[in-house]
Amino acid sequence: MAAIRVHGSPFSTASARVLATLYEKEVEFEFVPVDMRAGEHKKESFLSINPFGQVPGFEHGDLKLFESRAITKYVANEYAEKGTHLVCGDSKKKAIIGVWMEVEAHQFDPVSSKLTWELAVKPVYGMATDKAVVEENEAKLAKVLDVYESRLAKSKYLGCESFTLVDLHHLPNINYLMGTEIKKLFDSRPHVSAWIADITARPAWSKVLAMQKQQ
Amino acid sequence: MAAIRVHGSPFSTASARVLATLYEKEVEFEFVPVDMRAGEHKKESFLSINPFGQVPGFEHGDLKLFESRAITKYVANEYAEKGTHLVCGDSKKKAIIGVWMEVEAHQFDPVSSKLTWELAVKPVYGMATDKAVVEENEAKLAKVLDVYESRLAKSKYLGCESFTLVDLHHLPNINYLMGTEIKKLFDSRPHVSAWIADITARPAWSKVLAMQKQQ
Repeated sequence: MAAIRVHGSPFSTASARVLATLYEKEVEFEFVPVDMRAGEHKKESFLSINPFGQVPGFEHGDLKLFESRAITKYVANEYAEKGTHLVCGDSKKKAIIGVWMEVEAHQFDPVSSKLTWELAVKPVYGMATDKAVVEENEAKLAKVLDVYESRLAKSKYLGCESFTLVDLHHLPNINYLMGTEIKKLFDSRPHVSAWIADITARPAWSKVLAMQKQQ
Repeated sequence: MAAIRVHGSPFSTASARVLATLYEKEVEFEFVPVDMRAGEHKKESFLSINPFGQVPGFEHGDLKLFESRAITKYVANEYAEKGTHLVCGDSKKKAIIGVWMEVEAHQFDPVSSKLTWELAVKPVYGMATDKAVVEENEAKLAKVLDVYESRLAKSKYLGCESFTLVDLHHLPNINYLMGTEIKKLFDSRPHVSAWIADITARPAWSKVLAMQKQQ
């Protein structure tokens, strides 16, 4: 079996999504750090994997992939029988998982990524947080989480009754936001709060956090 | 076989994506217009299908779906043997299609949707176009289209050598933008231009445009 190589940074939310999936599937891989401060992701060698110049890049033999959610789906399907079963059910259940996969990508990610940038990343680089952006996106995230609270009152996880890629895709932004004032939005919703406690406690996710500490 | 019902508006890009897929698959469906000016998409009956209050909503018997790209994938899989084959290849080819599916959703859609809103929708409602937003997103779209031009020089369609959901998902925004000053960005790239001429000429897409004229 050809080796898997992941090019990225464990601090990048998109890279972390891929790393968590590989740990859940117990698939061996080589991690190739990309020095983004040195602009390595904009150089030709990296652009040959991802022409948009964004981490992560992924290689499996001669197959080159980018876009984190495309990579996680490939790994989940290619190693369906290994590690955690990250999809579930028949065609109708898969369709429901598909819906919540898109909800993460189009409802949760745009607002949570802006909040992560403003509240967790900018302060590290000594940049000023834009309070208007925070206020706008906090209000949007609250509305998304109201829908999540209602969904999680009926279903243990967002996609189905077991942990799937849908839940996993949320981990990197949630992890950053739990260390910011946004934590209150999660804590004030009991089902959301229990779901976060559950998914952030997964051993695979701990391994991603351990990689961050090693950097 | 339970009937399919699509709730939406043929003018909504997300609804048009679902309608084009159903026409490609030659699957019968009932179209239920949602009067968005009257706020019908925010009423309880619609929220029971899509808790985010956005069109389209989709019903197939007791299965209720939302998020246009989740619906198109369900239809393409559920009716794999009918009409146009909208996916292609083995697991590696499917992974590549997955990459370009995410590229549409995360690179093309955010910028093209903003341009559609500013240049095609706002003028219809007598609202002023925000020139700064247009300028910013035009520059971003140009960069995305540079990657597309390079991809389409090597592959007839974005996902693989045949027309797939990846190409189809682009149709609604491209259709709006071809009627605006943004057309020049497409016309100046020969492979992008040929691809657009090809995909917009599909009979299934003409049926969506015919629905717009009937409204």
